[in-house]
Amino acid sequence: MKYAIGIDYGTESGRVILVNIANGDIVATSVTPYPHGVITGKQGKESALQVPQDYLDVLAKSIPEVLINIDPTDVIGIGLDFTSCTMLPVNEKLQPLCELKQHKDNPHAYVKLWKHHEAEDEAKQLTTIVQNEKWIQRYGGIISSEWMLPKIMEIANDDPALFEEATFFLEAGDWVVSKLTNTLTRNSCSAGYKGTWHKETGYIANETLQKIHPALDNIYNTKLAGEVKSTGTKAGTLSKEMSELTGLIEGTPIAVGIIDAHAALPGAGVSEPGTLVIVMGTSSCHLLLSDKEVLVPGISGVVEDGILPGYFAYEAGQAAVGDLFAHFIKKHNADFQTLTEQARLLKPGESGLLALDWHNGCRTPYVDSTLSGLLIGEKLSTQPYEIYRALLEATAFGTRVITELFENNDIKVNKVVATGGIPKKNTLLMQIYADILQKEITVIENDQAPALGAAILGAVAANAYNSFPEAINQMASKQSITYKPNKEHEQTYNELFDMYEKLSTYFVQQSSIMYDLHKLKGEKQQ
Amino acid sequence: MKYAIGIDYGTESGRVILVNIANGDIVATSVTPYPHGVITGKQGKESALQVPQDYLDVLAKSIPEVLINIDPTDVIGIGLDFTSCTMLPVNEKLQPLCELKQHKDNPHAYVKLWKHHEAEDEAKQLTTIVQNEKWIQRYGGIISSEWMLPKIMEIANDDPALFEEATFFLEAGDWVVSKLTNTLTRNSCSAGYKGTWHKETGYIANETLQKIHPALDNIYNTKLAGEVKSTGTKAGTLSKEMSELTGLIEGTPIAVGIIDAHAALPGAGVSEPGTLVIVMGTSSCHLLLSDKEVLVPGISGVVEDGILPGYFAYEAGQAAVGDLFAHFIKKHNADFQTLTEQARLLKPGESGLLALDWHNGCRTPYVDSTLSGLLIGEKLSTQPYEIYRALLEATAFGTRVITELFENNDIKVNKVVATGGIPKKNTLLMQIYADILQKEITVIENDQAPALGAAILGAVAANAYNSFPEAINQMASKQSITYKPNKEHEQTYNELFDMYEKLSTYFVQQSSIMYDLHKLKGEKQQ
Repeated sequence: MKYAIGIDYGTESGRVILVNIANGDIVATSVTPYPHGVITGKQGKESALQVPQDYLDVLAKSIPEVLINIDPTDVIGIGLDFTSCTMLPVNEKLQPLCELKQHKDNPHAYVKLWKHHEAEDEAKQLTTIVQNEKWIQRYGGIISSEWMLPKIMEIANDDPALFEEATFFLEAGDWVVSKLTNTLTRNSCSAGYKGTWHKETGYIANETLQKIHPALDNIYNTKLAGEVKSTGTKAGTLSKEMSELTGLIEGTPIAVGIIDAHAALPGAGVSEPGTLVIVMGTSSCHLLLSDKEVLVPGISGVVEDGILPGYFAYEAGQAAVGDLFAHFIKKHNADFQTLTEQARLLKPGESGLLALDWHNGCRTPYVDSTLSGLLIGEKLSTQPYEIYRALLEATAFGTRVITELFENNDIKVNKVVATGGIPKKNTLLMQIYADILQKEITVIENDQAPALGAAILGAVAANAYNSFPEAINQMASKQSITYKPNKEHEQTYNELFDMYEKLSTYFVQQSSIMYDLHKLKGEKQQ
Repeated sequence: MKYAIGIDYGTESGRVILVNIANGDIVATSVTPYPHGVITGKQGKESALQVPQDYLDVLAKSIPEVLINIDPTDVIGIGLDFTSCTMLPVNEKLQPLCELKQHKDNPHAYVKLWKHHEAEDEAKQLTTIVQNEKWIQRYGGIISSEWMLPKIMEIANDDPALFEEATFFLEAGDWVVSKLTNTLTRNSCSAGYKGTWHKETGYIANETLQKIHPALDNIYNTKLAGEVKSTGTKAGTLSKEMSELTGLIEGTPIAVGIIDAHAALPGAGVSEPGTLVIVMGTSSCHLLLSDKEVLVPGISGVVEDGILPGYFAYEAGQAAVGDLFAHFIKKHNADFQTLTEQARLLKPGESGLLALDWHNGCRTPYVDSTLSGLLIGEKLSTQPYEIYRALLEATAFGTRVITELFENNDIKVNKVVATGGIPKKNTLLMQIYADILQKEITVIENDQAPALGAAILGAVAANAYNSFPEAINQMASKQSITYKPNKEHEQTYNELFDMYEKLSTYFVQQSSIMYDLHKLKGEKQQ
């Protein structure tokens, strides 16, 4: 029996799975929480740092655990996914600067986690300067403060000496792959979605970089240098040092890294265009393969080779999904099960309520974090479970905006696959999505889709399969539940969706009230 | 020492107070709950009936109680206020038809309480037919299902035989006054606000009545016949029979009746134009005297002699105030004190939230029960107390719409007096009202303003004073708290009020979404 290892580096812990490459069975699992977790408060209020050694600890602890009673020569390949853009400064030996004694207390020397939000000003400045360039349309017109360049600009602004000292800035996922293989490798997924890299045209032109910030001059040939390899290919093989750390055989093939959410696409069994994968957790990430590149307004990104080689991969997003339901339940001191059973009995339209699900801003299509939630139709007789259902429906309308956006731009969405923490737990939500999208929704039973996707990348990097479709067909999760759209609900949900779109358009394009309220709040909270 | 008696007939009970006419001190109080309460479910879902004998029980029980240790010859006058339109069919002896054995089980023979809402269809039909007549502008263009004519039409439609048998249809308040004095009297307050009566032009023209419903032909000369006397004048004197029932002296002067909320105006110490009285309970009723009649769009009514003789009295309303706060608190399982103390610490605009307070429809200015509540600006970080404060502010914005409506129509609002169940209990709300209206708000300490107003009417009917201003000056509540507007909040609340008005206008005049949601809800709930 032969195995691949998939490593899923999340926000709080790393998960290692050992997968039978013949059928995708997960034979063993081990989770190592990061000893230092997420470090907040070392810098500003929005800072979120990590310690790179924690990532190696995952390898050192969890790989030997999944290898118990396994012959390491039977492990043929390794793949990993990682949160992104989670980045760090390293020296010429790829050693993290935070590991140098003199930088022990310098927050800028540590890993800046994806949700480190201290570079808002830098992101705005960057977006303003590049707003008329064509390439930014690939990102819905916005550079997020979570991305690589704003985080680098933050270091250049706050600690120019450390900036100078850094030989490279690396995605943490690339740093781990580089450690494993002893070669500097950058992955096309992170580089494409979070680093403005494009397969044909490369990075941002240097004259633009100079306009953005003096520190960025020539940066893609210096501190961001390094070959971008396509996700889904091989990065290298396991080094001697890492063989000793993990108990795996030196020379074992290692796949190029991938962003955690994006690994869910192969993990959920998708290998071809036309199937939208929704990774549904606190927020939702929507992934879709296509044969062509179209600049779809408002999407989070389109990257050639972004998930699987040979395809353009589109990403869209909704900023509040599980978080929104949790917020509601907490606010009302309510019980999830009771709410769900009461909400299930309602007919579409029966509550007279409609919501906009912008409680954490709107990612796709408006890419605007200042937008806010809205509830209309409440009466004195309105019950909490009616509002709860309106919020479930609102996130489904938000998803329909995304599927229609793709379809209106000639990118087909034939099927929908849902994965992540929410779909298995919330059957009412899934039926509402099927009814509102008027599409079949397949929910993957196995909620380890990213780790499994990483293992599939590892197996393909080891040439265990001739093609991704073949590997995915054999190894991806097969157990699933399908929700079929209820035709009886189609007309009412069409009417409600029409209202949802009208409200959206009004508050984004015609009324300034959401923006004015946001501005006022900002002024008064100072 | 001389006394007047004020009787306040509410929805659940009758309250009798004995008042020292020299200084307005309430010497004794007795409350008698109606033995049969509010009878629901005898007819449709929206039916609310009462038993007329219950009103006499209040006289029989509570008057003797307040007379303990009092010489009844010292009681110089009696006044009463009553909910309206609360009406009943009687025979030629003014005996309620429900007291006749053959009608014991007929719901239409009983008192239809103000909140009996079974005549919606009749009210709509009536409003449609008269919508182009000038007089309906006095009522904001709408005849409510709570009023006299729709309730009569309901009886004519559902039980034509009983309709025929009724000699008169009477306001319950007028029925009690008629029982006390043994003379049929109708009061100008109920007739004006709920019965389409006008001092100069009388009732609706008979040709219009014929168009509305065949049963209404000539009705003001038959089943609605009877002199309309001005509220604030004398109806008659206590009959022998009622003297025996109550222990009061035969011949004691009895004032013409008045609607309960409207009695709060003299009870709160107002005798002249320019002071807006807000009676704030589950809903709010706004009362304002003026020297002139202007057809202010959207007001609930303007009636000459409607409250005090010689003045035009304007009424406006907000359909959800205390009810809205109670709804919120219940929905969130929250605690009033905790919420209030948290909400008090917020600065205007700090929550980023704005609400429309239409959770029970909008009375003034849109007179539209299908409108619904709205909340905009919610984020995942939003706390319940922030929403709570936004709702308090929303009702204050709703009140500002009303004060500006009067002022824009050249009816002065110099001062504001608040009375009712809410103002004494909710100091935060009162400060918010002062800040949002940018007017001083005087809150009357004594929350028995309607009963005290009734007692003042009784004293004036007995000629204890030469004028209302004199009587009100001596007898009305003097203890009060004044809330002064905080100038620092003026600009922010002006900005938020501007947004409140824009949202209102949008959802009433431009967008059909509130109406469409209401319609959909009605269809789905069937």
